Amino acid sequence: MKLAIDAMGGDHAPKEIVLGAMKAVEAFRDIQITLVGNEQKIRQYLTNEERIHILHTETVILGTDEPVRAVRRKKDASMVLMAKEVADKKADACISAGNTGALMATGLFVIGRIDGIERPALSPTLPTIDGRGFLLLDVGANVDARPEHLLQYALMGSVYCEKVRGITNPRIGLLNIGTEEKKGNELSKKTFELLKDTNLHFIGNIEARDLLDGVADVAVTDGFTGNMILKTIEGTAMSVFKMLKGALTGSMKSKLAAAVLKPDLKKLKAQMDYTEYGGAGLFGLKAPVIKAHGSSNANAVFNAVRQAREMVQNDVSGTIKAVAEQENIRLSIKS
Amino acid sequence: MKLAIDAMGGDHAPKEIVLGAMKAVEAFRDIQITLVGNEQKIRQYLTNEERIHILHTETVILGTDEPVRAVRRKKDASMVLMAKEVADKKADACISAGNTGALMATGLFVIGRIDGIERPALSPTLPTIDGRGFLLLDVGANVDARPEHLLQYALMGSVYCEKVRGITNPRIGLLNIGTEEKKGNELSKKTFELLKDTNLHFIGNIEARDLLDGVADVAVTDGFTGNMILKTIEGTAMSVFKMLKGALTGSMKSKLAAAVLKPDLKKLKAQMDYTEYGGAGLFGLKAPVIKAHGSSNANAVFNAVRQAREMVQNDVSGTIKAVAEQENIRLSIKS
Repeated sequence: MKLAIDAMGGDHAPKEIVLGAMKAVEAFRDIQITLVGNEQKIRQYLTNEERIHILHTETVILGTDEPVRAVRRKKDASMVLMAKEVADKKADACISAGNTGALMATGLFVIGRIDGIERPALSPTLPTIDGRGFLLLDVGANVDARPEHLLQYALMGSVYCEKVRGITNPRIGLLNIGTEEKKGNELSKKTFELLKDTNLHFIGNIEARDLLDGVADVAVTDGFTGNMILKTIEGTAMSVFKMLKGALTGSMKSKLAAAVLKPDLKKLKAQMDYTEYGGAGLFGLKAPVIKAHGSSNANAVFNAVRQAREMVQNDVSGTIKAVAEQENIRLSIKS
Repeated sequence: MKLAIDAMGGDHAPKEIVLGAMKAVEAFRDIQITLVGNEQKIRQYLTNEERIHILHTETVILGTDEPVRAVRRKKDASMVLMAKEVADKKADACISAGNTGALMATGLFVIGRIDGIERPALSPTLPTIDGRGFLLLDVGANVDARPEHLLQYALMGSVYCEKVRGITNPRIGLLNIGTEEKKGNELSKKTFELLKDTNLHFIGNIEARDLLDGVADVAVTDGFTGNMILKTIEGTAMSVFKMLKGALTGSMKSKLAAAVLKPDLKKLKAQMDYTEYGGAGLFGLKAPVIKAHGSSNANAVFNAVRQAREMVQNDVSGTIKAVAEQENIRLSIKS
């Protein structure tokens, strides 16, 4: 299996990307990695070239670049060449920690959508208290979604959870402002009608306050709302930790007690670390595309590689295609 | 000043409602309170009747009742009679910890909208790390909002922060998936255009992850998204505390250290307690209507009374009416 990685994307590129790639080829003997980016800079950190190739380019899409324009103009950017590897069948999947919008545009333009999926969805797995985690989609690939898009997100999320996360019959929840069937805005009401008619294990409306308690395996919503929820979880967790830190360093006495608790608190923070689940999949494209977090370290890159590898092994894209076809046939017969 | 309170609404009614009301009349010598509900049950807790009157009724709107139907059918419910006190000018403002949807319906049907405000907005003040707090609106009064509604929320939020919270020139932020001007869905893009044209101190798009850092005094969004954000903040904070509790009781050593830290952790939890800022105002109605949290204790009721009193004293409803008129004249001249 061959994976292409954008070596220049993310806050700690290329160092952490290269370190993560080396760790991954060591752990997984069945993969080869192509690192796309500035060869000289990559070589600074590359101490073992076994099953790692470099595809050199000097152009990089920056975090500040306007996504669509950047992808159109910087045709030899590391991110674009990475996707070309996949489009040209030289790689089975790809990973970037760079500009999210640009990666979505690159995925659409260069790799292309699966037939039957109208909109790709950006889909991170987030931690829950019980450690199972849940998939949230879409978190911003498509901000003006229609009910059929949300139905497709549910299908894709279900396939991913079964195939990659090993969850039998994943519980699909529709994010809404209440759990009763008739609740919500136009979009959620219409989506509810579509979802209850599928073969999915649809558990109905779920509320955002129950997400971290693990109320569902897949939480479906439009990209605008999903983005807000993702960032609210991040912001709130970070704020509580900041306040906690403030409280624990208030007096000498509390500082001493906090020192005793340090390992426990570290474990707690690790429990909240969603890079353990890999990056956010950009579901609905012809091959797996993983958006690793912008602040990815080597370990996050390693986890993203593991995730991409499992998506390829279990043919997530092919299964999504088959399921979407079935569902579209069912809907066309029904209407 | 006269305030009407639904004595039967909320998880701890009537006990905590009555205790909160007694505390409030003691603190504020200029108010009289009418408690609406079952006289016998109220009297169980009423130990001081000074400036407290009882309006007896036996009907109650339950949390499980379908809001609009309940308000239409249970015409002598404590919540409905409370609002009638305001409509009949026997009270200047009202407070309920009962069914949120029913309170919104009661407010609309019995008290009525301010001319020029098309949709009321449910508007809680939430805690920030620095203790200033921020106003979030709408959190669910209107789930399919249009750009003009969001403009009106901004106007109302600004008036409230100036008049009640004493913030000069409150910073108005539009919740969006990025801070750049052209970001977002149709609704947020159109709202941005409207907001940048007003006299408000509009600081542009803000992201949900920065809310608890106090990035704005007023965060404007549609009721669906706002409800999600509110519940995500609640859920995440609660989950982190649960995980913290788990971490701190893992071993004997950590239990001992946690005991030392207990006062600090309690303070931290109090910092996150948004009932300190009062209840959620239902802005846009002809008189102040406050939704106290369903789990309100006496202190939360006390804070809601203080908030209602300040809204009356500073004529928030009258000011909103005047500002909305000005804005509508400006928009009609412009178009």
